[in-house]
This record gives sequence, structure tokens and C-alpha cells, in this order.
Amino acid sequence: MRDSQFGVGVVGYGYWGPNLVRNFAANPGARVVAVADLDPARLANCARFNPGVTTTNRYDDLLNDPDIEAIAVATPVHSHYDLALAALEAGKHVLVEKPMAPTADLARRLIDEADRRGLMLMVDHTFLYTPAVRKISELVRKGDLGDVYYYDSTRVSLGLFQSDVSVLWDLAVHDLSIIDHIIEEEPVAVSATGCRHVAGSPENMAHITLFFDSPCVAHVNVNWLSPVKVRQTFIGGSKKMIVYDDMQPTEKIKVYDKGITVDGSQEKAHQLRIGYRAGDMWAPHVPAKEALETEVEHFIDCVRNGAQPLCDGLSGLRVIEVLEAASRSVAEQGKPVSLRRPARLRARATA
Amino acid sequence: MRDSQFGVGVVGYGYWGPNLVRNFAANPGARVVAVADLDPARLANCARFNPGVTTTNRYDDLLNDPDIEAIAVATPVHSHYDLALAALEAGKHVLVEKPMAPTADLARRLIDEADRRGLMLMVDHTFLYTPAVRKISELVRKGDLGDVYYYDSTRVSLGLFQSDVSVLWDLAVHDLSIIDHIIEEEPVAVSATGCRHVAGSPENMAHITLFFDSPCVAHVNVNWLSPVKVRQTFIGGSKKMIVYDDMQPTEKIKVYDKGITVDGSQEKAHQLRIGYRAGDMWAPHVPAKEALETEVEHFIDCVRNGAQPLCDGLSGLRVIEVLEAASRSVAEQGKPVSLRRPARLRARATA
Amino acid sequence: MRDSQFGVGVVGYGYWGPNLVRNFAANPGARVVAVADLDPARLANCARFNPGVTTTNRYDDLLNDPDIEAIAVATPVHSHYDLALAALEAGKHVLVEKPMAPTADLARRLIDEADRRGLMLMVDHTFLYTPAVRKISELVRKGDLGDVYYYDSTRVSLGLFQSDVSVLWDLAVHDLSIIDHIIEEEPVAVSATGCRHVAGSPENMAHITLFFDSPCVAHVNVNWLSPVKVRQTFIGGSKKMIVYDDMQPTEKIKVYDKGITVDGSQEKAHQLRIGYRAGDMWAPHVPAKEALETEVEHFIDCVRNGAQPLCDGLSGLRVIEVLEAASRSVAEQGKPVSLRRPARLRARATA
Amino acid sequence: MRDSQFGVGVVGYGYWGPNLVRNFAANPGARVVAVADLDPARLANCARFNPGVTTTNRYDDLLNDPDIEAIAVATPVHSHYDLALAALEAGKHVLVEKPMAPTADLARRLIDEADRRGLMLMVDHTFLYTPAVRKISELVRKGDLGDVYYYDSTRVSLGLFQSDVSVLWDLAVHDLSIIDHIIEEEPVAVSATGCRHVAGSPENMAHITLFFDSPCVAHVNVNWLSPVKVRQTFIGGSKKMIVYDDMQPTEKIKVYDKGITVDGSQEKAHQLRIGYRAGDMWAPHVPAKEALETEVEHFIDCVRNGAQPLCDGLSGLRVIEVLEAASRSVAEQGKPVSLRRPARLRARATA
Repeated sequence: MRDSQFGVGVVGYGYWGPNLVRNFAANPGARVVAVADLDPARLANCARFNPGVTTTNRYDDLLNDPDIEAIAVATPVHSHYDLALAALEAGKHVLVEKPMAPTADLARRLIDEADRRGLMLMVDHTFLYTPAVRKISELVRKGDLGDVYYYDSTRVSLGLFQSDVSVLWDLAVHDLSIIDHIIEEEPVAVSATGCRHVAGSPENMAHITLFFDSPCVAHVNVNWLSPVKVRQTFIGGSKKMIVYDDMQPTEKIKVYDKGITVDGSQEKAHQLRIGYRAGDMWAPHVPAKEALETEVEHFIDCVRNGAQPLCDGLSGLRVIEVLEAASRSVAEQGKPVSLRRPARLRARATA
Repeated sequence: MRDSQFGVGVVGYGYWGPNLVRNFAANPGARVVAVADLDPARLANCARFNPGVTTTNRYDDLLNDPDIEAIAVATPVHSHYDLALAALEAGKHVLVEKPMAPTADLARRLIDEADRRGLMLMVDHTFLYTPAVRKISELVRKGDLGDVYYYDSTRVSLGLFQSDVSVLWDLAVHDLSIIDHIIEEEPVAVSATGCRHVAGSPENMAHITLFFDSPCVAHVNVNWLSPVKVRQTFIGGSKKMIVYDDMQPTEKIKVYDKGITVDGSQEKAHQLRIGYRAGDMWAPHVPAKEALETEVEHFIDCVRNGAQPLCDGLSGLRVIEVLEAASRSVAEQGKPVSLRRPARLRARATA
Repeated sequence: MRDSQFGVGVVGYGYWGPNLVRNFAANPGARVVAVADLDPARLANCARFNPGVTTTNRYDDLLNDPDIEAIAVATPVHSHYDLALAALEAGKHVLVEKPMAPTADLARRLIDEADRRGLMLMVDHTFLYTPAVRKISELVRKGDLGDVYYYDSTRVSLGLFQSDVSVLWDLAVHDLSIIDHIIEEEPVAVSATGCRHVAGSPENMAHITLFFDSPCVAHVNVNWLSPVKVRQTFIGGSKKMIVYDDMQPTEKIKVYDKGITVDGSQEKAHQLRIGYRAGDMWAPHVPAKEALETEVEHFIDCVRNGAQPLCDGLSGLRVIEVLEAASRSVAEQGKPVSLRRPARLRARATA
Repeated sequence: MRDSQFGVGVVGYGYWGPNLVRNFAANPGARVVAVADLDPARLANCARFNPGVTTTNRYDDLLNDPDIEAIAVATPVHSHYDLALAALEAGKHVLVEKPMAPTADLARRLIDEADRRGLMLMVDHTFLYTPAVRKISELVRKGDLGDVYYYDSTRVSLGLFQSDVSVLWDLAVHDLSIIDHIIEEEPVAVSATGCRHVAGSPENMAHITLFFDSPCVAHVNVNWLSPVKVRQTFIGGSKKMIVYDDMQPTEKIKVYDKGITVDGSQEKAHQLRIGYRAGDMWAPHVPAKEALETEVEHFIDCVRNGAQPLCDGLSGLRVIEVLEAASRSVAEQGKPVSLRRPARLRARATA
């Protein structure tokens, strides 16, 4: 059976579910077997545009279907844990929306369950599959930037105020997964500040600093109440620096051959020791492939061929740990919170 | 004598001194009497382009000159306190470069000395005199923005690494003086993080959050190691929001009629309570007058006619207090530092 | 029957046809009865996503269907004339893609046929229904710009080289329809230059100047071989000026309160007579409604309620006349070609 | 004497003269001997800032001074010819502002006079000495762009309306000198259109097309009545394309590895023959040296060491010929005007 098409079930057909269905359906090696949702209108809509797909309001139908090898969970956050756990217990591989669980403890339980059963548990950090982030990752890993000095991101817009999660869990989660992916070092502490401008709502604006053992620092600025949409990240290195502007239709990544040079001799006076370098800028062509298409290919490749997942359960857990620590720091006006982790969490993909 | 021209002495003819001389010389009510500097080459340069100005390497010549009513101090930071104090003791009004002193304690002593002698002590926070900041200040004071929700500024470039002061004292000082001017409320705490990428040098990158009693928050991002120069400030209000981009040759200020509306009824579900509003954008024409020209006019007006100074000693002190607190917070990875001040420091200009 | 739903047939289901079907289907007052195309795969695709729509490879099925009140023609240019004529002869109203015919003569025959039968003939100049162009049109008609001095447009990109029509008929046609709509005056002559960089292909780059009796001038720059995509139009007026940048996600239209003032007195020397004015910039909020949705509503309103069409056959003809004249001018390196038209063509919508 | 400093006289101390004086004075090999102007206030101003320079209101003083080897003419256009001719007749080398004469005939006489006397006659086309244009020229000459397909420039702003020359002679002259320099081919015809929006004033807006024997085409859009300032040039080549934006503080030049590929086989259908290529973008670092500093060095090098001038009299004449032809074409609404030139005018610098 494993040589046949990859059978997928999708639970949740709201905002993101249709994208999952479309991309699994378009993948020549996969087939969407069934879609579950509690809302009859959504199911009808799904049925209309996907004639061959079974629709159901019973999640058990997916769990019990032997043609379904993997389940994609695209429901609201609070149900991620229960649905993903049930899928694993039914022997299905899982692709779950981020954040994979509302707490690090629950995330760890999912990881343990998947490990014990030898199943794939992947978190849908879609940004890691964008051509831009893949190119940045490639440049960093090749050493083109030298030592990474900082990652400084601004992700603000007039966004939808969420009622149950703060802007940290809604927007900063994207940067935290990118940081986890491209910076080859674990953060050791986090300081974050935030603010709520609507009484009774969670923080709609926050700033996070991640500390590392090296002098590298990461900072994320997120805001649901900005007059213009900004998606801009500066990445500084000892050799080169990147500006990544996701709002640009093309030339999203600009690589600057700029920086400082430090004269090794400590004898010399300070000002003489530091030199400034201004060279060319280069914007590598980045193809326009949809991130989710790549992600679906990768998920199937991981399950079928044992490829190393780019965002496995551990990476999803690391992001949640930072979110939890940042939320604690916000509650204490920036007081730093330690992030020292046991060694087992540090293993990561190197793709 | 008070009806005659305003006699000015300038000490320090390095980077900024020539600008002070030029602007005082161009003011029809003022006259530059003498310039003091220790460097003969600078004095020769000054003499060449300013034939009527006495040049001297003895500061005492300025202090003892009865034609000099006020002294502008444009020397390196470490000498500000001594030179300003001597000028006050000699009965001269003082315009001193920012920061006016290396510590809040010394700044307080200057203020006391000026108060005791009934002399003007003004700090050269030039940004407050730019047409853009004056327009923003006018819009905020008129209530066009409603309640100010946040001030969020990015001031980064490939800048000159200083040997004795961190990027906070070099770049953040500009934003702190603007915040002090336009936000009609005192900060009560500060959390800041920073990083040094050259061993033995001060922090070259920092992020500061200022807390207020209201939900307003201010954040400043400064960096000497950025591949591109950014001078951009977002100011969010309950009615309107501003984007101020100082790198634009024109249209530096954009006012957005955008935001959220909150339904007063707490009964309703969260999502229904918050509405989104997207209206016009408006870029008021801002004339191109040099900030220092306006500042010099204002300084003379304050001394001669008793106008209320926009950046008196107290405002300079408030900025130094924030810098000191931020530096302490940086040393403890963002741990918040309280800024509760005695009431006497809260008086401010309302121009 | 006229009170019932508006029955529509669509011929051509290639690039644009699906958009027409989708928008007519979404209109509550209309119904897509049938779609004709010669390609079975396209018909199958249409049937899959539009279960209630009849598909056919015989155009006659549409012509003979009494439930079809109007036919939308979305086929290649060379067949527009024949298909539209047949529809009119069958008593159907017609919405035809631009250009409505390959020559002005054939366009005139379609207009005559529609007139004689009292049928609506509308040309699908979609840009006229974009919120941005409607806002510009409103500002011009209200007199906000004063006298229109010029329209100067750049429409370039790395575009698909067409084999049978030049860049004039492919890209300039958009600007010519906008000019026809917003400038309340007829062009009297055209000068155009062009260039072909692929032997045997039509011009891939061209510049057109339209002359009017007034000092108003219109210029269009089109190019299939540009490294970046530009969609930018400057509109100068005696009172205000507009920059319309269609590549911006928001703030597509900026209205500048800038210009010159001319002192009436001819006695004075030249330089004294001209003054310069630099005021505010204003970007009116423009809603994000799809142009074709508005166009479909308008077409139905014209047919059912006798509304005045924004782009009737005469406006389509005027655009073709300019294209023909411009093509002749290109062949003679910019030699001007007269556009004097008989009065009957000058009638236009005033919406 | 020729080994000593290069003695220079400058006539005209209005807008541009002070820049010439400053740059010749700063050149270690040159000395400004005297400055002539009819306005006593300007002479006084010159004397104040240039203590060692003789000032005079008699041009003859410059002509008769044996220490003056070369004269720079920076007066209004109508006097260029007479002053430059007198300088040549007095045996002085000449650097003359553009346009060097009001007609091509007079320009030719200056060239002949200089040739006959073996003197240098250089025209001050300053743009050719900007680091950006020099980099573009280098890329074109190295063949990086392949065949140059087009040069398309927009040079518009709310500019000073001139009373005696049209926008062609004021703004287009810059592009025409750049085109003359970087396109290694002579234009054979010109078509231009223009418009005047102030009665009694020259054209304030114009569009020029230059034709070449090859399929290369050049187009220039100039306008004194634009709400925003644009200085943007697109240069298309068979291999690469450039966007040169002089309003950018950095990254003025962007080189795009984009374009089309044409399959040689004429047998294949059109669409199959043309391929599209989208590669990286590259912004070479361009140093920030003042153009006039380079130009002054070059002028001295040409006079003293026989270097080939970048913009000699012939290049100045070629630009004037195009301006004359374009002005004639404007008067006839774009009718093309031939530019076939005798062979002797075609010699050019190849630096």
C-alpha cells in the first residue's frame, strides 16, 4: 500500500483547510481522502469544489479510514492538541497548524506520543518553505554572512484583534520559527514588553529580545495596530547583511556587502581599530513557488522516505517555549526569563 | 545694552560649532563675538570665514568678555558640565549640546546653578526644531490623534562606532527628546536590551521600551550596524496614526485616518466589539526651514523676552534620567528600571 | 421575462472568460445560462466548477437560446467582430472584449447594427471600473484639478510578446480608454514612435503623444521589455496634480496641492509672473472592490434600466481610431496623424 | 611655466561659478587666478571667501593675464559664444557651460577656432562625471548589457520655468549628453512633441524620441510641471537591463539579469521562439565623489597631458544639433527631423 498514493485526511475547513486540500490534491503522489468539519456549509462548499473527496462531520471517520495515512489539523488552536493526539493514537502521521498546542507541556506529550509510535509529527510553520526564507537559510548556512550578529524583524499591520491569543502567538510565532531555523544556536533568555490598547483584550503590540550565548541577538516587533503593513527583517553578519522585505513583489531579499572590520591589535586607539566597508548590493532571484506546495512535498517525503523534517515536533516545541517565556516576561515589564533547555531539545534539521 | 545685538560666544569649533556660528551670525538680532577652541587649525579656519569674530584658545576670554551675553557649548560630552558651569558662574546664558552632562546628578547641578542665577540653560535637542517634529507636536496637542497609543521608532544605519558612549547616548537620545516633547505624560519605567559586537566597545545596538501609567508605550530601536539607513517613527493614536520617515526628501509625515473602534458594550462577544476603520491618508506640507535657525531664534527669544524654552535644563535632565535607567536595564538583560520622578521635574513647555 | 434574472451567455473560456462567468454568477440579478468554446478541455473545466451552466462547442446554441438576453464575447481579437455581429443579429445585447474590432470600420458597423436594433453594445474597458480610475474621474469632473494640463502614463514590464498585435494594441489600449474617459475633450492628432527588437515581431515598445485643441497633452509609454513593472500615471492640472501608481497595494492615488500660479499682468517680466505653490498631499481611501464586479452590475443596469454606459460602442471606436492613427504614425517615425472626427462620435457618458 | 600650477580664470559668479572656483581651488595642481563678473555684490562675495583671488568686472583682465592658462565660462547662455571665442582668441583653453552656444552654427565656429589654435575646448556636461554615469558607461562598453535596445529617461519636477529656453534645452540636454556618451552610435532622426501651459512661455513639457540605424531607440521625458521629482532612466540590453534612479541616496544603479531569448529558427511558431529570463539583480557600489571634482581633474589632464576629453566641442555640438532638430520637430507636432551628420562629427572619446 505504501507504494500507492499518499492518502490524507484534513480536519478543519475554515481559512487554512482549503489551502491544504488544494495543495495535497495537486500533488501527484497524494490524494485527499476525506475532510471533516462541524459546519455543514463548509462541508458543502468543500464537496462542491472537490467532487472525489468524502466529507463528514465525524472526526472518527477520518481516524478509522484505512486509506488515510496522515491527518492535517487546521482547526482553532484550542483543539490542536486533542485532535493531533487522537490522530497519533489512531496511527496516523500528523501535520498540525502552529502553535501545535497551547502550552509546552502539551506539545511535549504530542512529541512523546509520535516518538513512541514511530509516526511523523510536523508543525505547519509555512514561512520556512517560502523561497525567500529558504534562500536566506542557504546563505547563512554557506557562511556568506559570517557570524550572525542579529536578526531584527518588524511584522506590523492593522490586523485582526484575536480574543484568545496575544499578538505574540499570532504574529511573533512566524519570526520565532524562522529564528529557530536560521540561527544555529539556542536562545538562553528572553525579555519582552507588550501593551494592550483595548481593555479586556490580549496584548496587541509587543517587542521581544532573544539572547544567545554568543553576542548574537534577535528582536521581533509585532503590532496589530499599525497604519501600514510592514514585513521587514534585517539580518546582520560579520561579513554581509540582509534586508528581507516580504511586502515587495520581487527582490524580497537584498544582500549587502557592508559592515565593519576590526583591527586585531588592541594597542591601537579605539577609533583606529574599526573600519567601515561599503560594497555592492545583490538581490538573488527567488522563484515564485507557493510555500505550501513545497511543504506538502516535504511532508510526504519525510513520511515516505525518512527525510529529516524541517519543522518537526521539537522545533514546534522550541517556538512554544519561547512564546511562553516571552508572555511571562511581558507580564513583568521586560524582566528576563531564562530559556536553558535540556540537550535533547537541541537536535535540529540541517537541511 | 539689552536692546542692542545679542552677543554670543561659542566654545568648540569641531563638527557642530561651525553650524552654531553660521546660524547665530545669520540671525539679524545676534552677533558672534568670539569663538574658543584649543586647536589652532580650527581657529584659523574660523577666522578665515568669519572675519569679524575674535578667535582664542583661552575659554576665559569668553567668560570675561562683557559683550558676550550667552555661550554655546559644542565640545565633546565629557567637558559639557565644566564649561557650562563656568559660563553660568560668569553670568552667561548657556546653550549646551546634548547630552548636557554625563550623569543626571551633574545635570541637576547645572539646572540649580542656572535657577539660582536667573540664567537661561537650554539643551540643544535640535530635532525638536525640525519642521516635521513641530508639525507632529502640533497634531498631537490639537488632539488629532486622540489618545496616543504608542511611539515606535527605528533609527539605524552603518554609523560611526563611538568609543566612550553607547548607541543609546548617541542615537536614542534623539527619540527620547522627541518622546519627552510630544507625549504629555511621564514614563514610569524602562526596559532595554542591547548588544556589543566589537569586544571592548560599548553597545552598538539596543532596543528600549518606555512604560507610562496610561496604556501608552514607547519603543526605540537603534543600531550602528545596519546595512541601510532608516529613520522611521510610527505614532499610533485612538483617532489617527502617523508615519514619520525622515529619509524622505518630501512628505516626511503621513497621517492615516485608520484604526479600530471599540464598542462600549462589554456584553457582546469580543470579535463583534472591535471594528476596523480605513480612511484617507494625508501628508501635510512641511516647509524646509533649517532646524538650527529656528532654535537660535527661539533661544534669543527665551533670553530676551522670557519665552518658555522648548528644551530647558529639566527636559535635558529627563532625557538623561531615561538614558541612565536604560543603560542599567541593558546591563540586566531588560530588567525594568523605575523612573518615578519628583513632581518638580514634570513641568514642561507647552509650546 | 424582463423582471426575471438576467440570462447571460459567454463565448470564449480562456484567460478572461472564467472571470466573466464568475462575476455574472455572483451577481444576484444575473444567471449564466451557457458557455461556448471550441476547446473540450476548457468546457469540461467550466462544467466542473459551474454545475448549473450548459456548455457547448456550438455558438449557435447561445444565439438560439431564448433565456439568453446578452452575450459576453471573450475570444481572441480577430473573432470579436463576427461573434458580436452574430449576437446582435440574434437580438442579444453584447459585452465585447477590447479592442472590439481590428479596425475602426468594422467597429462602426457593430455600432450601427446595435443602434438599428436598439441593443446595448458595451466594450469591456475594465480599468474604467477600478476604484482608482473612478476616483480620479470623480476628482476631474468635480473640477478639483482645475484645467487638465496633461496625462502622462508609463505602463511597462517584462511582458508577453504578442505575435499579431503590437504593444500599442495590448497595453496602450488601457490608457487610451482612461484618457477617453477622464479628459473631456477629443484628441485632434497623434504622434507616435515605436521599435521592434525581435525581427519579424510587432513593436514591443512605443511612445504616443495625443494633441488636443487646448494646451492639454496626453503621453503614453508602453514597453514589453522592461526589467521592472511600472504602472504609473501623472495627471497635471492647473489647481492640483495626481500621481496614480497601480503597483501600490494601497494609496494608489496621491493628490498634490502643487503647481504654478500665473500673474495675469503681461506687463511684468517673465520670471515675476510665475509663482510656485507647494501644499499638502492627500491619498483618498479607495475601496478594494473588484472592477469586473462593478462592470457587470453596470452592464445589467444599462440593459435593464437604460443607464448610460460608461464604455459604449462609440468609446470603443474612439480608442480604436487612436490606435489606428498611432500605428500609422509609428510607421512614419512620429509624423503626426490627424484625428478630426465627425460630431456624432463625440457624445459620451458623463457618469 | 607649464610645470607650475594650472592658472584658471572664471567668468560668471552666479549659480555655477562658485562651484567651479571651489573645485579648481581644491585641486592641488590648479590655482584660481581671477574671477570676472559684472555684479559688484557677487565679486565682493567671491573676494570674501577666496582671499587670494583677484576679482574684476573687466573680462579683458582675464584675457590679458599671462598667469591664466584656461578660462571657465559660467555666464548665461546667450553670452557663451562671445566669451568663449574671445578666450580662444586670447590663447586660453576653455571650459564652457552647456549648451556651449545657442545654435549649432556658432558651436561649430568655436570648435574651428579651438582646432586652429590647438587649444582645448571642453563643454561642462557634468553628468558624465557622476560616478553613476561612469559606472553605466563602463558596463555598456564592457558589453555586459549586450546590444543596447533602448534608453528611456524621465526627468521631471516642479522646476523653474525659464523665460528664454524651453525645457528641452534646460533638462533634456542632460540626457542627450549621456546618450551621446554611452550609446556607441549616432542618432539619425528625432521626433519630439511638447506643450506650453503658460501663454508666452516656452515649452514646459516635452517628449523626445531618437532613432538610430540599429533598432536601438532613445526616449526622454522632461517636464517642469510635475508634482514629484523623478530622475529615472531605464536602459534595456539584449543581455541585461539597468534602472538608474538618481533620486536614491544609495543604490542608484540596479542591473537586472532579465530579458528575452530569441530562438534563431524562423520555422517555429512565434510564441515558441521567444523565451523569458528572470535572474538576479545587482546594485554595484558607486563611490560618492563630486562630479565636478572629477571633471576639473580631467580638464587639467586633457590640457596638460593630452588626454582625450570626454566632452569636447564636438560632443557639445552633437547635443546642440539634437536640441535644434527636436525643437523643429516640436513645432510640427512630432514630424521627424533627420540628423544625418558628416563623418567628421562622429569621432568621439572612448574613455
